[in-house]
Amino acid sequence: MRVAVLGAGPSGLAQLRAFEAARVAGVENLPEVVCFEKQSDLGGMWNYTWRTGLDEFGEPVHASMYRYLWSNGPKECLEFADYSFEEHFGKPIPSYPPRAVLRDYIMGRVEASDARRHIRFNHAVKWVEYSEETEKFSVTVKDLVADELVTEEFDHVVSATGHFSTPHAPEFEGLDTFAGRVMHAHDFREAREFTGRTVLLIGSSYSAEDIASQCHKYGAERVILSYRSRPTGYAWPEGIDEVPLLQRLEGSTAHFADGTSAEVDGIILCTGYLHHFSYLPDDLRLVTNNRLYPGDLYKGVVWQENPKFLYLGMQDQYFTFNMFDAQAWFAREVILGHVDLPPVAERQADIAEWRAREEAGTCADDEIDFQAAYIRDLLSYSDYPEFGVEQQADLLKQWKQDKKRDIMGYRNLGYRSTLTGSMAPPLHDDWINVLDDSAESFLLH
Amino acid sequence: MRVAVLGAGPSGLAQLRAFEAARVAGVENLPEVVCFEKQSDLGGMWNYTWRTGLDEFGEPVHASMYRYLWSNGPKECLEFADYSFEEHFGKPIPSYPPRAVLRDYIMGRVEASDARRHIRFNHAVKWVEYSEETEKFSVTVKDLVADELVTEEFDHVVSATGHFSTPHAPEFEGLDTFAGRVMHAHDFREAREFTGRTVLLIGSSYSAEDIASQCHKYGAERVILSYRSRPTGYAWPEGIDEVPLLQRLEGSTAHFADGTSAEVDGIILCTGYLHHFSYLPDDLRLVTNNRLYPGDLYKGVVWQENPKFLYLGMQDQYFTFNMFDAQAWFAREVILGHVDLPPVAERQADIAEWRAREEAGTCADDEIDFQAAYIRDLLSYSDYPEFGVEQQADLLKQWKQDKKRDIMGYRNLGYRSTLTGSMAPPLHDDWINVLDDSAESFLLH
Ligand SMILES: Cc1cc2nc3c(=O)[nH]c(=O)nc-3n(C[C@H](O)[C@H](O)[C@H](O)COP(=O)(O)OP(=O)(O)OC[C@H]3O[C@@H](n4cnc5c(N)ncnc54)[C@H](O)[C@@H]3O)c2cc1C
Ligand SMILES: Cc1cc2nc3c(=O)[nH]c(=O)nc-3n(C[C@H](O)[C@H](O)[C@H](O)COP(=O)(O)OP(=O)(O)OC[C@H]3O[C@@H](n4cnc5c(N)ncnc54)[C@H](O)[C@@H]3O)c2cc1C
Ligand SMILES: NC(=O)c1ccc[n+]([C@@H]2O[C@H](COP(=O)([O-])OP(=O)(O)OC[C@H]3O[C@@H](n4cnc5c(N)ncnc54)[C@H](OP(=O)(O)O)[C@@H]3O)[C@@H](O)[C@H]2O)c1
Ligand SMILES: NC(=O)c1ccc[n+]([C@@H]2O[C@H](COP(=O)([O-])OP(=O)(O)OC[C@H]3O[C@@H](n4cnc5c(N)ncnc54)[C@H](OP(=O)(O)O)[C@@H]3O)[C@@H](O)[C@H]2O)c1
Repeated sequence: MRVAVLGAGPSGLAQLRAFEAARVAGVENLPEVVCFEKQSDLGGMWNYTWRTGLDEFGEPVHASMYRYLWSNGPKECLEFADYSFEEHFGKPIPSYPPRAVLRDYIMGRVEASDARRHIRFNHAVKWVEYSEETEKFSVTVKDLVADELVTEEFDHVVSATGHFSTPHAPEFEGLDTFAGRVMHAHDFREAREFTGRTVLLIGSSYSAEDIASQCHKYGAERVILSYRSRPTGYAWPEGIDEVPLLQRLEGSTAHFADGTSAEVDGIILCTGYLHHFSYLPDDLRLVTNNRLYPGDLYKGVVWQENPKFLYLGMQDQYFTFNMFDAQAWFAREVILGHVDLPPVAERQADIAEWRAREEAGTCADDEIDFQAAYIRDLLSYSDYPEFGVEQQADLLKQWKQDKKRDIMGYRNLGYRSTLTGSMAPPLHDDWINVLDDSAESFLLH
Repeated sequence: MRVAVLGAGPSGLAQLRAFEAARVAGVENLPEVVCFEKQSDLGGMWNYTWRTGLDEFGEPVHASMYRYLWSNGPKECLEFADYSFEEHFGKPIPSYPPRAVLRDYIMGRVEASDARRHIRFNHAVKWVEYSEETEKFSVTVKDLVADELVTEEFDHVVSATGHFSTPHAPEFEGLDTFAGRVMHAHDFREAREFTGRTVLLIGSSYSAEDIASQCHKYGAERVILSYRSRPTGYAWPEGIDEVPLLQRLEGSTAHFADGTSAEVDGIILCTGYLHHFSYLPDDLRLVTNNRLYPGDLYKGVVWQENPKFLYLGMQDQYFTFNMFDAQAWFAREVILGHVDLPPVAERQADIAEWRAREEAGTCADDEIDFQAAYIRDLLSYSDYPEFGVEQQADLLKQWKQDKKRDIMGYRNLGYRSTLTGSMAPPLHDDWINVLDDSAESFLLH
């Protein structure tokens, strides 16, 4: 049996680790697992690149992360149950690490396993097709360095290519004659581009709030947040303002729904992402908006129309790495036939039930509890180690409040690991003062 | 018989016009022609968009053109032989029109024909495959609005998707920590982003020289051109300097091969483009650098391995629209069987001969003569109207000298149409002073 894993970000790596864990546990007759990754290294979204748009091979650049990015959630709520931060770094570290530190942690677990040898780097998946006759998938991949297409057959395919890389960029009147740079958050890289300038951000979710903080921290004169449904509502420092939705641009003047206007130097569309799978035919392709329980996926993982095709990480995310692990361990059990899939109608009813529950929620706390319950359900199907999901849900609710209280200061705080019981030390200085986000500097303190 | 034309830029439109011309001339049993275009309108590279990277459907943005772009060659050397500028605009116009005016001209010829009804807009070609059994191509296309894949069969395929859209962006040390915006020329849109700033351009060809001129014209404090092989050598005005190749960046300091350094606010890689065909299997895919005679194409058009697959516009270009026409009329004759293709070895010898001739050239004038000879050869196979290729070649040589003499002023000059014999009026003011590049303003004078 052969399994293809598409993508070597946290989700794809979780799948490799899940099979590795089974091997170590002595499970026999494990499938051959091959992971295709278009980047030259593992880490997915956590790899930084200065490139935007298309990469050196003409492939869409995957990275949406930017310089000076710090975790926006406490690391205690994404800790791998089988590999704690403390094990990796040899000591407790603060709760909100910068990007490079989280990347190091992701790499650490992988290097401690045999996962790397399963990965074919610089291989972009171009096309996947299922044959009813052979009951196999043919996966066509471009070897980017050799500039050559290769097709191989697999019994199962796990799609783990992420869903925060293809920009959703709406049109606004006057963008085509705006006298400055317009970009989507996906292409934002360097806050110092806006030092001393006024930048307009459209959107009021995570990208908007974090890019606003970055630009402010690195010296933007003014940041204007323009919301559609509701403002972020944080107590922003002077220099960051919230206004209702942009109506139109005239030259470099932005006009907003409340009749106010402002001169702006640059515009960043923080308007979210599309689930996009250029390599999938319509009968295998997930179509969804960004939500906690996309449809057509049993347990959020197994493709309804063809259960030999599985997806990881397609949910909107409060929990991240540990949720991907729970999914990957579940996916492994499905692939190995250790979990009996109920008939299609029963699966459909299960999906409908979860979606109704999701839709019944009314606030962020409900969403957090929902995702915790979803993970708890997944854990009941595999031997993935216990990690205190509900305790972590409480931490996430705390995090929400801490952020509300102090949007520019919440990253100074520390939380307790549900795995090791250790308390995270506070950040060595106020986050707003820490301009050096390197791993060396962060780990030194 | 069915023919698929991929792309509705000047080349693809030339193919539609070629068949239309045959229909009007009374040729019978013409094939059904279907053109797939991923943009929402025709015009190809000549359509402007503020978008960069990926578009609203997650497809790579085709446009590399920017605001305030003016033709960099005289319009007299790209005039359609069957539709003069004078016919379209009702009067002689200056020789270097801004983008919108050339787009209008392209549209004009199309609207005067039945070409538009053959085009399926918002349809991105995803995959083309040839079956030895059916002797047909299956072309898989994404209907972007319906979000659906469609596959159809064709006897011939003409690929006309351009080759100035996929950036070639080399790595330089320190780009990943540079404290400002880094982009490829493909993503450059608005010179006023750099008003009052210092911008570094890498490259010394058309994109570099034109973006330097634009940024200077719209108030950049300083433009630095950094060359690999040779400087552009123009007599640049104060505020534009040429230096040898960038060696590395430290923060916002750029260090050059001659030991000098400069503080820069932004970097634009004007380092050319890749021939990129994400929709083609290896056996149909042209692999070439940007040159006057890519290999594997008989008469620069017919794919050697499978002569039912044809390419238009894959050459580097002195001549543009009229060369595409000459190619498209030739392609039509091949498809209709009016031109007998010699056996493969003879075709190969012909290709080799042309390439040897190309390589024997030593200067720009040789290149111009080469491309003129190539077009003259093509014209001998079809009834495309005579347009004075050799006279136009002389104009191009003149243009080279005029540019050399005055890089910021050559667009003020006018040339004589080889079709109508009319002399173009000079531009109404010095190009450097004409900040409004709208068609209305240009045509008013
Ligand atoms: C700006 C930003 C900030 C974020 N910050 C946080 C944070 O602070 N904390 C947190 O927990 N989460 C954060 N996230 C969420 C983040 O996406 C997840 O942490 C995690 O990276 C998702 O893992 P994944 O493996 O599902 O997807 P990804 O990490 O996106 O990995 C997908 C992999 O698939 C590869 N791939 C894609 N297409 C192909 C193809 N055709 N062929 C081959 N390979 C392909 C990619 O190269 C990539 O390696 C952030 C996301 C964004 C966009
Ligand atoms: C910055 C810049 C400036 C230029 N300036 C000049 C100038 O001043 N004068 C001049 O004569 N030439 C100029 N050119 C050259 C220009 O490329 C040609 O004039 C002309 O546009 C080439 O025509 P084409 O049809 O071959 O390609 P394009 O104009 O590039 O058209 C290709 C078409 O194919 C479509 N397409 C691509 N991929 C797909 C797909 N997968 N599915 C469906 N459709 C697809 C595109 O959307 C596009 O419409 C310039 C080029 C650039 C990059
Ligand atoms: N580590 C970090 O600090 C960090 C930083 C950035 C992002 N992230 C992660 O990245 C992921 C994506 O976050 P995101 O903020 O990019 O996307 P998102 O959460 O999906 O939010 C999309 C935003 O765009 C707005 N929007 C959509 N269409 C719009 C339109 N037509 N006009 C105006 N506004 C529109 C939405 O407004 P409505 O509310 O009106 O729909 C919403 O505010 C999250 O998982 C997040 O955690 C993390
Ligand atoms: N209307 C207009 O005004 C206008 C404007 C822009 C472009 N265009 C058109 O667009 C097309 C493309 O032009 P282009 O200039 O983008 O591409 P190009 O003509 O192919 O030139 C590529 C340039 O990049 C340089 N380069 C490549 N790799 C490099 C590296 N690793 N380091 C440093 N330099 C490197 C090359 O230098 P070497 O010489 O060392 O190889 C060359 O100068 C042309 O058809 C042009 O007419 C027109």
